[in-house]
Amino acid sequence: MKTGIRRRMGVEQRREQLISVALELFGHRSPDDVSIDEIAAAAGISRPLVYHYFPGKQSLYEAALSRAAQQLAALFDEPREGPLGARLLRVMGRFFDFVEEHGTGFSALMRGGPVAGSGRTCALINKVRRAAYDEMLAHLGIPAPGPRLELALRSWISLTETTALLWLDGRRVPRGDLEVQLVHAFAALAAVGAAGDDDMAAVLRRLLEDEPAHGPFTDLVDRLGAAVPQPT
Amino acid sequence: MKTGIRRRMGVEQRREQLISVALELFGHRSPDDVSIDEIAAAAGISRPLVYHYFPGKQSLYEAALSRAAQQLAALFDEPREGPLGARLLRVMGRFFDFVEEHGTGFSALMRGGPVAGSGRTCALINKVRRAAYDEMLAHLGIPAPGPRLELALRSWISLTETTALLWLDGRRVPRGDLEVQLVHAFAALAAVGAAGDDDMAAVLRRLLEDEPAHGPFTDLVDRLGAAVPQPT
Repeated sequence: MKTGIRRRMGVEQRREQLISVALELFGHRSPDDVSIDEIAAAAGISRPLVYHYFPGKQSLYEAALSRAAQQLAALFDEPREGPLGARLLRVMGRFFDFVEEHGTGFSALMRGGPVAGSGRTCALINKVRRAAYDEMLAHLGIPAPGPRLELALRSWISLTETTALLWLDGRRVPRGDLEVQLVHAFAALAAVGAAGDDDMAAVLRRLLEDEPAHGPFTDLVDRLGAAVPQPT
Repeated sequence: MKTGIRRRMGVEQRREQLISVALELFGHRSPDDVSIDEIAAAAGISRPLVYHYFPGKQSLYEAALSRAAQQLAALFDEPREGPLGARLLRVMGRFFDFVEEHGTGFSALMRGGPVAGSGRTCALINKVRRAAYDEMLAHLGIPAPGPRLELALRSWISLTETTALLWLDGRRVPRGDLEVQLVHAFAALAAVGAAGDDDMAAVLRRLLEDEPAHGPFTDLVDRLGAAVPQPT
């Protein structure tokens, strides 16, 4: 990078650049293994200049995490109409894009560690989970859920995180399969809860009412039905 | 406690007593909030004597955690025969007994924190997860699973942890309902994965082959079938 261009960068631009560089490095290596020297080198500036914009690696890490959190919250950003299954499947696709891009950093963050395990990063992770939960409710059209639906939604969000984490560890299953499976798992969990709860039954109906015949959920139910012994 | 009795306690007995006292206290309050003074008082011995058996709270905490881990691993301890659904349901019952008994400590451990978030406690949690995974494979009778079954099993174990954690936060859903739902969720996840994988299909068959007609899984499938639009 030319010095002339570097000089013209404003404070906010420089901070944004450092965040991008850090996220890029954290995508392939744990934040604990990436030094400020490397971030400085990758950004083409000196180590002291990095400290001018961020007082330490922790603050740069948290800024990078904040940006990643914004990206995650935007996953659900799409029209709240049309078949729910297809909407969820698009969200899962964008989620695995995100996970793939930020692989190592995502693992380090979710597993905790010297840099990633602080109280502030925990608070930020919980904020993203809450945002995902609120977005799901908005897509489902249920503003005030009962405790069972809340539990099912939060469980499913956790299932999605775990599945992505386990997938990253070896990538031995095609991610497209997992995206479909997570949407199926959501329908399955709704069906499991629908027996004893009106909210859950409403979710299941909403999931299935727009579903085209021969769609993914129909297929799932057919398979379940074929596998189970029929009552005699 | 009488001094005469106290004196007769051997080193192992005293350590076991301190672990029991600590687990009892951690059941209702976060380990971070429980002092060595309180543990000493509850055990009826002096603070220096506690340090004689455990060099610090961290080591006592880890010993308590080790014992809890043994209890968790024993959850699966039952004959490997009879309907799988019923076996799993009994395991879930014992798991929620454990979670109820150790409520606060369990939450603190799973959420991490100053005492609970160390590398050694993380390693111990992962050991318990691996034990649960191995026990599940043994019950399923599948010693060498493919990557999809491995992923599904690990995801379900994580789902079980999360569900218990969320349940502890307010206990707004009867735990018996959650125990049944987790067993249903296991069948549902197996069904979701069975389309593209022989191991998963085998698990689903094994889950359902022993299942009595009008059993819990049959009911689940009936509900799913009734809710979905039929192909025309």
